[in-house]
Amino acid sequence: MKRIGVGLIGTGYMGKCHALAWNAVKPVFGDVPDVTLVHLGEANEALARERAAEFGFARSSGDWRKVIEDPDVDVVSVTTPNSFHAEMAIAALRAGKHLWCEKPMAPEVADAEAMLEAARQSGKTAVLGYNYIQNPAIRHIGHLLRENAIGQVNHIRVEMDEDFMADPDAPFSYKHQAASGYGALDDFGVHPLSLITVLLGPVASVMCDMAKPQARRKTSEGRERDVETYDIANVLIRLENGASGTLQFNRAAWGRKGRIALQIFGSHGSILFDQERFNEFQLYLTSDRGTEQGFRTILMGPQHEPYGRFIPAPGHGLGFNDLKIIECRELIRRMSGEGEAHVIDFEKGYEIERTVHAMARSFREKCWVDVP
Amino acid sequence: MKRIGVGLIGTGYMGKCHALAWNAVKPVFGDVPDVTLVHLGEANEALARERAAEFGFARSSGDWRKVIEDPDVDVVSVTTPNSFHAEMAIAALRAGKHLWCEKPMAPEVADAEAMLEAARQSGKTAVLGYNYIQNPAIRHIGHLLRENAIGQVNHIRVEMDEDFMADPDAPFSYKHQAASGYGALDDFGVHPLSLITVLLGPVASVMCDMAKPQARRKTSEGRERDVETYDIANVLIRLENGASGTLQFNRAAWGRKGRIALQIFGSHGSILFDQERFNEFQLYLTSDRGTEQGFRTILMGPQHEPYGRFIPAPGHGLGFNDLKIIECRELIRRMSGEGEAHVIDFEKGYEIERTVHAMARSFREKCWVDVP
Amino acid sequence: MKRIGVGLIGTGYMGKCHALAWNAVKPVFGDVPDVTLVHLGEANEALARERAAEFGFARSSGDWRKVIEDPDVDVVSVTTPNSFHAEMAIAALRAGKHLWCEKPMAPEVADAEAMLEAARQSGKTAVLGYNYIQNPAIRHIGHLLRENAIGQVNHIRVEMDEDFMADPDAPFSYKHQAASGYGALDDFGVHPLSLITVLLGPVASVMCDMAKPQARRKTSEGRERDVETYDIANVLIRLENGASGTLQFNRAAWGRKGRIALQIFGSHGSILFDQERFNEFQLYLTSDRGTEQGFRTILMGPQHEPYGRFIPAPGHGLGFNDLKIIECRELIRRMSGEGEAHVIDFEKGYEIERTVHAMARSFREKCWVDVP
Amino acid sequence: MKRIGVGLIGTGYMGKCHALAWNAVKPVFGDVPDVTLVHLGEANEALARERAAEFGFARSSGDWRKVIEDPDVDVVSVTTPNSFHAEMAIAALRAGKHLWCEKPMAPEVADAEAMLEAARQSGKTAVLGYNYIQNPAIRHIGHLLRENAIGQVNHIRVEMDEDFMADPDAPFSYKHQAASGYGALDDFGVHPLSLITVLLGPVASVMCDMAKPQARRKTSEGRERDVETYDIANVLIRLENGASGTLQFNRAAWGRKGRIALQIFGSHGSILFDQERFNEFQLYLTSDRGTEQGFRTILMGPQHEPYGRFIPAPGHGLGFNDLKIIECRELIRRMSGEGEAHVIDFEKGYEIERTVHAMARSFREKCWVDVP
Repeated sequence: MKRIGVGLIGTGYMGKCHALAWNAVKPVFGDVPDVTLVHLGEANEALARERAAEFGFARSSGDWRKVIEDPDVDVVSVTTPNSFHAEMAIAALRAGKHLWCEKPMAPEVADAEAMLEAARQSGKTAVLGYNYIQNPAIRHIGHLLRENAIGQVNHIRVEMDEDFMADPDAPFSYKHQAASGYGALDDFGVHPLSLITVLLGPVASVMCDMAKPQARRKTSEGRERDVETYDIANVLIRLENGASGTLQFNRAAWGRKGRIALQIFGSHGSILFDQERFNEFQLYLTSDRGTEQGFRTILMGPQHEPYGRFIPAPGHGLGFNDLKIIECRELIRRMSGEGEAHVIDFEKGYEIERTVHAMARSFREKCWVDVP
Repeated sequence: MKRIGVGLIGTGYMGKCHALAWNAVKPVFGDVPDVTLVHLGEANEALARERAAEFGFARSSGDWRKVIEDPDVDVVSVTTPNSFHAEMAIAALRAGKHLWCEKPMAPEVADAEAMLEAARQSGKTAVLGYNYIQNPAIRHIGHLLRENAIGQVNHIRVEMDEDFMADPDAPFSYKHQAASGYGALDDFGVHPLSLITVLLGPVASVMCDMAKPQARRKTSEGRERDVETYDIANVLIRLENGASGTLQFNRAAWGRKGRIALQIFGSHGSILFDQERFNEFQLYLTSDRGTEQGFRTILMGPQHEPYGRFIPAPGHGLGFNDLKIIECRELIRRMSGEGEAHVIDFEKGYEIERTVHAMARSFREKCWVDVP
Repeated sequence: MKRIGVGLIGTGYMGKCHALAWNAVKPVFGDVPDVTLVHLGEANEALARERAAEFGFARSSGDWRKVIEDPDVDVVSVTTPNSFHAEMAIAALRAGKHLWCEKPMAPEVADAEAMLEAARQSGKTAVLGYNYIQNPAIRHIGHLLRENAIGQVNHIRVEMDEDFMADPDAPFSYKHQAASGYGALDDFGVHPLSLITVLLGPVASVMCDMAKPQARRKTSEGRERDVETYDIANVLIRLENGASGTLQFNRAAWGRKGRIALQIFGSHGSILFDQERFNEFQLYLTSDRGTEQGFRTILMGPQHEPYGRFIPAPGHGLGFNDLKIIECRELIRRMSGEGEAHVIDFEKGYEIERTVHAMARSFREKCWVDVP
Repeated sequence: MKRIGVGLIGTGYMGKCHALAWNAVKPVFGDVPDVTLVHLGEANEALARERAAEFGFARSSGDWRKVIEDPDVDVVSVTTPNSFHAEMAIAALRAGKHLWCEKPMAPEVADAEAMLEAARQSGKTAVLGYNYIQNPAIRHIGHLLRENAIGQVNHIRVEMDEDFMADPDAPFSYKHQAASGYGALDDFGVHPLSLITVLLGPVASVMCDMAKPQARRKTSEGRERDVETYDIANVLIRLENGASGTLQFNRAAWGRKGRIALQIFGSHGSILFDQERFNEFQLYLTSDRGTEQGFRTILMGPQHEPYGRFIPAPGHGLGFNDLKIIECRELIRRMSGEGEAHVIDFEKGYEIERTVHAMARSFREKCWVDVP
């Protein structure tokens, strides 16, 4: 692959994030093919033209199918709302394009399954935008686990909390309707699951509880309406590797802004991580002398791949958007067949989504459910 | 009450802790009756004599019944292993003594119930040693919750973790036998429940999972034996006040030494606390200006009762043993009828223990259980 | 200004950082002119060509003068080693180009003065790369100070520490020679001074000590050589506004990777900041109720300009390279005459460098020195 | 020594703290002689009687000389205001009593010198109340330094900050008069110096600056008066062992309650400590693998002497008053000739006070001063 022609559909925050990544991946990494921003698609031509100018795309269309049909486009970034993913992704794969699709795959399992099927048949790269796994800290944690640094992992806890749904006076919105999904369970759940998938493998069985911090809300017209989604979800889990654990999601947790807190306990040590301070993690090793055992706070630096491609000095800090640049590099690695890429592809992504739906069933049935 | 005659049974760590509290309560608080250390009971006379000399008790006996029968004794500290609590506590109450008994009440619910009945019939003060609730930080958190500082509490998480059972090479011991109890569930569970009880009220229903990080251990003779207790327990809970929550206990969590981490989420703020840094807590208030909202780390000082009785300057730090001195002060308040005492008495203690047993049943039956 | 033609000289880390910023400033901010990467200069043509391909520049030259003479270039990024700044900057300004020059201006005061003179005569924008001041946290701290949130500032402390010179076994290098400068004093000192300048104004007088953690080092040939520079510098300071303070620099501080720790004390509160966790800062306000006063940890979010241009959700974190993108935006603001730009221009930069040299004099003379 | 008869003069906070220590030292440590609380002296008989009842002393007097003359008293705790120390200490030593005197020795060097002389002539134990050095964390840091764990120490920083003088509206008080001393320099300075003395040895030379955050204050009658003392002091120092360093004291630092922050940098690691979280410290070791180097947060436990005498479980936390109990144990060790005691005696105490006065001279003369 000498040159990559890029198409982008959707220019909300994730679209901008993809655009930034496509602009930066070559200056940051150097060792990638030339990247050409070919074609941007938006809901109408005016908006498409404006964003193309901002993001540096050569062409623009008010119809996303034009992007997919563009012969100069090799890979399509799909960053539209989740309900559009299936149609666009399947069309792009059928048109012979590689695919970089934002997570989750689709609100309905059937759609996710169809997407997976399309990817399998196309033989093209189909990667999901699970950027948290790209963090050098997470990648280094994975490395430590694989080399058995903390022994056999026997227990994990993952919390994901934000507070954008916490205000009891905020009006009833789309996110409070059942049509938007279960609530925190699917809104947040896929992220921790992406981390667990790459660090520890699949979830085997689940027992889920969900709760509504606020049962009713005023609509913008002043009527009271029942809230249909659950801003809180707590899940007891068992992993296939035998470890027990818990997952906790709360999108109404005042003070939490982007918390994804991991606790991983092993037979010879422990690992802690918090996404709100994602340039560091904590490690406890029983191999340290007894009088000096303690959690080490390890700041990321060039010795933690691929931090050094961004900054040669340690402790200076990557940003959230940088994780997307790393994801883009890994996507290119997969597209180019350069060796093992560190990505969540449609196979793994489908597994994550089935796990979420198993949790929802467990809540409805008030019992443990095996992930199918 | 002009003078308090004290009897002490048991001189392990908690016995020493009671002795320190009885020695210090008058110098620290001043406004209490004179305290006389009358009679110490231990398993044999030699040990009793030695400890009496160390702890400052006037008399000693190798038979605990002598302590209970001593007419100069007004209140008996029972700090023996849990399985002895019922017999000693009931005997002391029947002998007309006030009682300060270490938690939990008893391994069997029936015994705990008998203890409660004895306390009711005696009309005497019967208080349990739940010292974590005495922390000025916890008491101030309670104060904030009662004045509605963070609005309606809708979610809580409590984790209690230590690592004394984490070493996979440690030999099979009594704590690994079913006779010692469930494992982390009862070993740890009563502490978080004591905090929840005083801060938020009773637990309504529970769904519990338990796990063994280590399935088999070598005995000291080198045989392999199945571990019968669970070092890990995770519980989904609902409180009577409607809040949802989770409890997590792990006594095999490398790196955790005395962690009891609370997260309390309300409609207008949040509170965080960790027992490993128990002279501080964190508070997030939505009433702060939007651009400066953040968790405040509040160090305890004389403005947080009763810190000032120990140290006149803020931020200098109480110790774990100081909490027992406060507990002793509250016990005296209850004994003297001085007004509302901040204690876990046998009524509340029995509620806590029923909750633990409900959790165990929920685990066995793999379903939600209402606390009876 | 409809379109900005960019020239870049130097492609070490700071050159890459400028290139990333020039690539991203339009996608991130939108409301800026089109940016065209016109001409890249490096030490030889091959390297220039390679980097131009990576960074997205249209033309390349092995002679930096070609970049300056290119009529399509409006602004030149100078990112070469410090000793080259003066010649290149003065040439660029004389050629009628705007200038974005990495800090510090020059090793010698006389050169810095000549650069300032050239900037004044040219009437062009001449901005220095003090990116730490661009952090939304630092900008918000400045906002709080201007609105008097912590009252009258009476004391400050700034520490800047890294550990890249800490290894006693590392060989003697250029940085150990007097020709490289004083040591930590000028290597680090300009950064804290840039923060003090924008937050609190000029330094009035200084009293400096410097120290060598390691007096001698082995050369790569195995000879021992005296270390001529000082890896540690400590400075007592007085600001023009009357506040007292200290500056501490240590480039041999094991464990510190990118620490720039600020402590700002005022009559009604305090502010803390640490560059190693630069997406947050801490604020203590005496206007909080006495029982709940504490340092708030405030995570950056869209309410802290210009965080929201990068990420719409709070607490997700900017990276070190993002600060350069903000700096680029401010440079464009100054170039375009769009209103007050938040930059360190040559006027302020010259003041910073005179302050550093006053410190060095104070050390030599072992007495307080007024900043000229 | 089979039995220790204790006299106590003064019952302010430090008097109470001594009383608590004398009450607890035997129950906590066990392996000490019996302690008898013999005689308490206060300013008048009524107060003396009241405090004796609270603190458990058998006799009381309104005249401190009675305490010193009491033949049953072996050791006298002197906890009166600093200006009384010299007279009482010298009288007690001449009466053949051991002495436990609160720090500092005396406001005037001449008095401190006379105290030292009296101690030398008496041959009795004369120990100062520098309790911070008794912290198991500090003692373990000392152990690590002695075993060269972080290599050669080349730099230290110590900050001591509180905020009890920070309120600009607080009225002019005794502490603002020159008669009370220099200000933060002597009020705080002796504590960090006690730590430096036991950890790293004597200070060789000093260069001090002092500042007044508030130049004038209203008296309680409403007049404005010049503040004569300095709430802020900053000192550049050189240790006899060759290390450079800084000391910073601020008793007007809003938000700081009991901060004594140490940073110790060595050739192979670093150590951090903060008294506000004094049950832990941080350690960075270059012997850790490069990809996992980081500051370890080490919680105190039974493996850190003498924590285990208080609590058998790690991470449960000692309190500020517990440090006085340890100090009492060390005093007894010295009195009993049991081996090397970990104390600041009058020899070392005098050295500390000369160092403070050298700092004051350095400030007056605006130059470096060698500690005599």
